[in-house]
Amino acid sequence: AAAPVMLEGPGETEPPRINISISKRSMASKTPVGFIGLGNMGSPMAKNLIKNGYPVIATDVFPESCKELQELGAQVMDSPADVAEKADRIITMLPSSPNVIEVYTGPNGILKKVKKGTLLVDSSTIDPSVAKEMAVASEKMGAVFMDAPVSGGVGAASMAKLTFMVGGLEEEFQAAEELFTCMGANVVYCGQVGSGQAAKLCNNMLLAIGMIGTAETMNLGIRLGLDPKLLAKILNMSSGRCWSSDSYNPVPGVMEGVPSANNYQGGYGTTLMAKDLGLAQNTATNTKSSIPLGSLAHQIYRVMCSRGYANKDFSSVFQFLREEEAQ
Amino acid sequence: AAAPVMLEGPGETEPPRINISISKRSMASKTPVGFIGLGNMGSPMAKNLIKNGYPVIATDVFPESCKELQELGAQVMDSPADVAEKADRIITMLPSSPNVIEVYTGPNGILKKVKKGTLLVDSSTIDPSVAKEMAVASEKMGAVFMDAPVSGGVGAASMAKLTFMVGGLEEEFQAAEELFTCMGANVVYCGQVGSGQAAKLCNNMLLAIGMIGTAETMNLGIRLGLDPKLLAKILNMSSGRCWSSDSYNPVPGVMEGVPSANNYQGGYGTTLMAKDLGLAQNTATNTKSSIPLGSLAHQIYRVMCSRGYANKDFSSVFQFLREEEAQ
Amino acid sequence: AAAPVMLEGPGETEPPRINISISKRSMASKTPVGFIGLGNMGSPMAKNLIKNGYPVIATDVFPESCKELQELGAQVMDSPADVAEKADRIITMLPSSPNVIEVYTGPNGILKKVKKGTLLVDSSTIDPSVAKEMAVASEKMGAVFMDAPVSGGVGAASMAKLTFMVGGLEEEFQAAEELFTCMGANVVYCGQVGSGQAAKLCNNMLLAIGMIGTAETMNLGIRLGLDPKLLAKILNMSSGRCWSSDSYNPVPGVMEGVPSANNYQGGYGTTLMAKDLGLAQNTATNTKSSIPLGSLAHQIYRVMCSRGYANKDFSSVFQFLREEEAQ
Amino acid sequence: AAAPVMLEGPGETEPPRINISISKRSMASKTPVGFIGLGNMGSPMAKNLIKNGYPVIATDVFPESCKELQELGAQVMDSPADVAEKADRIITMLPSSPNVIEVYTGPNGILKKVKKGTLLVDSSTIDPSVAKEMAVASEKMGAVFMDAPVSGGVGAASMAKLTFMVGGLEEEFQAAEELFTCMGANVVYCGQVGSGQAAKLCNNMLLAIGMIGTAETMNLGIRLGLDPKLLAKILNMSSGRCWSSDSYNPVPGVMEGVPSANNYQGGYGTTLMAKDLGLAQNTATNTKSSIPLGSLAHQIYRVMCSRGYANKDFSSVFQFLREEEAQ
Repeated sequence: AAAPVMLEGPGETEPPRINISISKRSMASKTPVGFIGLGNMGSPMAKNLIKNGYPVIATDVFPESCKELQELGAQVMDSPADVAEKADRIITMLPSSPNVIEVYTGPNGILKKVKKGTLLVDSSTIDPSVAKEMAVASEKMGAVFMDAPVSGGVGAASMAKLTFMVGGLEEEFQAAEELFTCMGANVVYCGQVGSGQAAKLCNNMLLAIGMIGTAETMNLGIRLGLDPKLLAKILNMSSGRCWSSDSYNPVPGVMEGVPSANNYQGGYGTTLMAKDLGLAQNTATNTKSSIPLGSLAHQIYRVMCSRGYANKDFSSVFQFLREEEAQ
Repeated sequence: AAAPVMLEGPGETEPPRINISISKRSMASKTPVGFIGLGNMGSPMAKNLIKNGYPVIATDVFPESCKELQELGAQVMDSPADVAEKADRIITMLPSSPNVIEVYTGPNGILKKVKKGTLLVDSSTIDPSVAKEMAVASEKMGAVFMDAPVSGGVGAASMAKLTFMVGGLEEEFQAAEELFTCMGANVVYCGQVGSGQAAKLCNNMLLAIGMIGTAETMNLGIRLGLDPKLLAKILNMSSGRCWSSDSYNPVPGVMEGVPSANNYQGGYGTTLMAKDLGLAQNTATNTKSSIPLGSLAHQIYRVMCSRGYANKDFSSVFQFLREEEAQ
Repeated sequence: AAAPVMLEGPGETEPPRINISISKRSMASKTPVGFIGLGNMGSPMAKNLIKNGYPVIATDVFPESCKELQELGAQVMDSPADVAEKADRIITMLPSSPNVIEVYTGPNGILKKVKKGTLLVDSSTIDPSVAKEMAVASEKMGAVFMDAPVSGGVGAASMAKLTFMVGGLEEEFQAAEELFTCMGANVVYCGQVGSGQAAKLCNNMLLAIGMIGTAETMNLGIRLGLDPKLLAKILNMSSGRCWSSDSYNPVPGVMEGVPSANNYQGGYGTTLMAKDLGLAQNTATNTKSSIPLGSLAHQIYRVMCSRGYANKDFSSVFQFLREEEAQ
Repeated sequence: AAAPVMLEGPGETEPPRINISISKRSMASKTPVGFIGLGNMGSPMAKNLIKNGYPVIATDVFPESCKELQELGAQVMDSPADVAEKADRIITMLPSSPNVIEVYTGPNGILKKVKKGTLLVDSSTIDPSVAKEMAVASEKMGAVFMDAPVSGGVGAASMAKLTFMVGGLEEEFQAAEELFTCMGANVVYCGQVGSGQAAKLCNNMLLAIGMIGTAETMNLGIRLGLDPKLLAKILNMSSGRCWSSDSYNPVPGVMEGVPSANNYQGGYGTTLMAKDLGLAQNTATNTKSSIPLGSLAHQIYRVMCSRGYANKDFSSVFQFLREEEAQ
């Protein structure tokens, strides 16, 4: 049985070391891949494509973001449209829905010059309904769109240990999988277009609920006189068990190698979790789904963002709830 | 590694079959055990003591509850005080805090006639602060009190598969453990008096949060077009994983042998969960602990109790949240 | 001082009686007004314009909706674009954001044929950001856009007792006010474009919170043995006072002439409140505003919609929370 | 019509000036009143009794608290029992339930020496069920117990402007009312014993919900571009209106003379509100009442207590939710 995948797991503290030793031959034998969006996540992902012998044709709104990749051999273009003209497989990795809409359907967007049959893979985390819109727009131009959001953070991106949750036509899945395996360790096919995004939002919503619940429970138990390590052990052998209690415990001193052991540095930031919960809330509102705990989790991370926890790992909710009242 | 303990797991649907074949000799060699409270849980627990060769001296406010046990050889007394006069180890299994107070400190209570050095074990689920009060009152009379709430339900009680969470003096633990192992499969020492109750409340609060969270998440995913089995699989290999998603999934059709596969019959009733969450809320209020999700979980199970879900398994929250809006 | 305005107040139970006695002369002297969207709200609003002597040029996606108005003298067109060609003041009254986008910017939308200087007033309840987008698009065509959502329900629409909350350029406000006063009793200028929508969403969010809070409080008080009328009186002379406690009490028997006195018929439906709270939630998420109680109120009305309360007045939350638990 | 009573209103900033000019004659003609608990609230209340000519017989666990009252002519006793021996009307004003239990039923408590027919009035804010217990215990000794919690704060106590919410036998109400009118401006009879407490908890729970709701709404509106004063005006003429929006607005700059205009100094502290909400939660749990918003309000004030808001006015929840996220 495969080891459990850690979505949005703790960030690595050591700098990623990637040995780029590419045989010119292998590069020549592979068709180029377009890559749009060279931020914290996109840049190491693109590097891993290069490392695996794919010629990369890249662009970013900030030209300086392309420099490092250019030195590694990537061809840099001025716009998404220009990338689309040259590559028949393109990956996009962008911060949010409006950027995705612009990169695909804007005046210099991919769809202005996309070739028929091109495979478009969006790895951004966005609203599933936007993914569906992009798929419809792509199809009109004869291209194929897949959503493939990732989890695992910057460290996992560098070490090609990401998990891809993929939505799209099953018959196109294999063509994309070849690329995913260069950048990640796990690939999960989730169904039709948009279901990659849906799966990621669902997972992260339940993760947030489990984390806050674990933080509340551990805090309550400690105040009732229980030893935190013992309480964690009891929960983990019982029905209270969850990933946040057994693999990412938010209480300092209970586990090693997790953000709570490192003053909540690294890991998955509260701001990112608040963004994901906002997307989950939007999809729930649009589908008239009741998510009472998910909504409250969203509000709690929202408040935390404005009270100094924006850049701490999301397990810092324990610290947020923990402090003793002033007497 | 031991299999995970399922606290408050699904009830068994088949009637428990216990072969009572007790050697008279072994009975003679063991000192009698008092047992007060012969309800749905207490009765099979007491039977398991008899089965293991312990002479049982029992009582209950409803005399008819004692009949079956009497036929198996138990001696039936009129009051807790009378039991205390005859046994130096006594187990109590009662519905709630007021009953415990009455049975220990009432006019015909245990403490009226308890012998010095008697071991008193309360397996009821009550407020940890009441457990501490009982311990203080018992100590005044020279007796030793332990709290040892159980999980596992009626089926586990019948099959001696309960889990005991025990609070009390560590040096007295062994004397009690001998009895626990006749009635249960797992015994967890949690610390000072009251910590058995604390551990149980903590676990069940996190369990309730995880269950509602799982129900919300599965419902949202389904509305977003995900296949429920696939979504459960993705969550369970990811950071959204929890006991409610991987061992007790609330969505019909995802797992077999759980209440959701049986129209939410059996298992752990919504009323019981609401009671536990009320106790957790009380302890949180008293210790000024913030439990935002735990509080909301309490309110949700409270509403469910009044809307026809009182006697369904607590995983029926999926059904409660699921229904489509009338158009 | 003016009497308090009741936003989304109780619906009238009697059919509205409007005496349409229009002088042909006054009609001739006024410039025509376009009206798009002749549903439950739009139809009586347009009638009131006719009653006040304005020639009306109307359209609706359902041609049969136009019949009654046509008999009263309105000119019916095929599309919003056609209306725009003929009228230089146009009011739109549509169910939700996508309809507004279609009617303004669609292939047969207003903006296809709008004349320079036309005043466009949207009285739909939609996302403030969509209102702003429509304003930008209108401005590009040389037209002026205002948002002017209403409150008061179908009864108030019929009796020209609506309240308009208006966002847009202050210098254009007077030209619009002339029309509002034909259809409503109160007009509130709220600021720049979008602020009419913002004000409405803010009011209705606080209204929902106050209503659920009143329902919880009254229920708790009743269970503690207080007489509901006396409790309402105490709250209303104290700091717990709110519109839901003193003008629209949700407990049957406390007030007359409100939906709670009529089995929660009439008034403002739970579905509509859930829609408004969804919009409020969206704007809060987009502006990163924390609305813990507003979010929970949204979820509660969402659950109610799927449990048989969709068409009852939103004060039926008292009934939803009230029921005694099964014993 | 009487002016609305402000329960727990803003504290006065000026020191209270009480002219104590007591005619010896009037004092002689009135029977003495016992007063137990001379804290921030009790002390000015007892002074107002003296001012109105009542001989006061007082005690407090901290003897130094009695000094000032002694100088004004009060007779100071060693214990509640001693007070009970001398007075046939006794008022108690204590911090919380355990103190009340001790003062009434403890070894030196009132009930040890209470005379038959004595009127006992408890003005503490406690659990209604404890009030009922005290009533039962008092009745056993032939005394009459009433609960009469107050609202209005220290300033109102000094100026005899408190509101009393009274529970107890209606036929005893007049004997007590004579005393209440010396210390307060409003007296509300709420029903049987415990209903004074019930009414106070209900009011304060709805007050807390309204305050947080107002804070969320004002914050959301401001972020949407609305002017806070204008938004408050719109809400106050509409159905969002509540005491917190129209009489105690939490947004600095909207109103004068309220804590939000004075950096949230004075008024009703967050800690006190959290205590009241804890009591409300307990009574709700005990009566199996669903209070979703009340529960969440409790949790929010609980978190605020531990994050530096303990001693600020409870309207500071606006500030707590307001802060912009770090970018």
